[in-house]
Amino acid sequence: MNKYMMKAMKVAEENLKTNHGGPFGACIIKDGEVVATSSNHVLKNNDPTAHAEIETIREACKKLNTYDLSGCELYTTCYPCPMCLSAILWANIKKVYYGNTKDDAASIGFRDDFIYNYIQKSQDSSILELIALDREQTIKTFQSFSEKQDKTIY
Amino acid sequence: MNKYMMKAMKVAEENLKTNHGGPFGACIIKDGEVVATSSNHVLKNNDPTAHAEIETIREACKKLNTYDLSGCELYTTCYPCPMCLSAILWANIKKVYYGNTKDDAASIGFRDDFIYNYIQKSQDSSILELIALDREQTIKTFQSFSEKQDKTIY
Repeated sequence: MNKYMMKAMKVAEENLKTNHGGPFGACIIKDGEVVATSSNHVLKNNDPTAHAEIETIREACKKLNTYDLSGCELYTTCYPCPMCLSAILWANIKKVYYGNTKDDAASIGFRDDFIYNYIQKSQDSSILELIALDREQTIKTFQSFSEKQDKTIY
Repeated sequence: MNKYMMKAMKVAEENLKTNHGGPFGACIIKDGEVVATSSNHVLKNNDPTAHAEIETIREACKKLNTYDLSGCELYTTCYPCPMCLSAILWANIKKVYYGNTKDDAASIGFRDDFIYNYIQKSQDSSILELIALDREQTIKTFQSFSEKQDKTIY
């Protein structure tokens, strides 16, 4: 078994005892060195965004003192949900190794596949309603930003 | 202008001066009361996941002492990126009001639309490579989880 995936799996297994969150773990490496490893902490932290991949990205960014993880690779015990997959793209990670599949996650009761379906296909308003409001006001902040000299795009 | 959207826009505008992150803000309400308001903190926190919606969800969960924001509504100055949209679904928020559009975000240089395109359509491996690995091992953690008596699904 790959040694980085083994680290990710070890923290996922700890969650079976600690109940810190779902049975998921992740590990980020750079140049063959482990930068960060974390399990899912949704239950412990009362944070629905504290998936293993997100927690590991946050920890790696803290260690490397950057919001840009270019050159890093991520190992995760399960195919990333759309939230984590997007976080991986925002972080500029370009290679992800995953163990279990979306179907495996669905079969133990998690909504990864349901959320993929909403985003990729249905956008069913009975699940989530998205309502346009006050753009004529909010667009002013974007206009000010585009005229700003000292801006950083991430 | 809607008063909750105005609160979200106010913190978005503060970012133009503080450079804490992109020009985005969000506000979560429950039963007409404001629970949490936050701007984007990607730059200040060195955290690529610290979008306004995610920061606001985290703060609301902390205040309400839960990972489940059922009954809450979210106001955001820009249409949520796929990371934030998924976080909203994980948090069980069912109504979102947004100001600016994905196209507006693209026009000031942000990758929201690019990430939607990856997830909804291309899954282009030159952007991000997803590689299956060691499922015969990682599936064991899921099997143990499914046999576990005291489990919580979120």
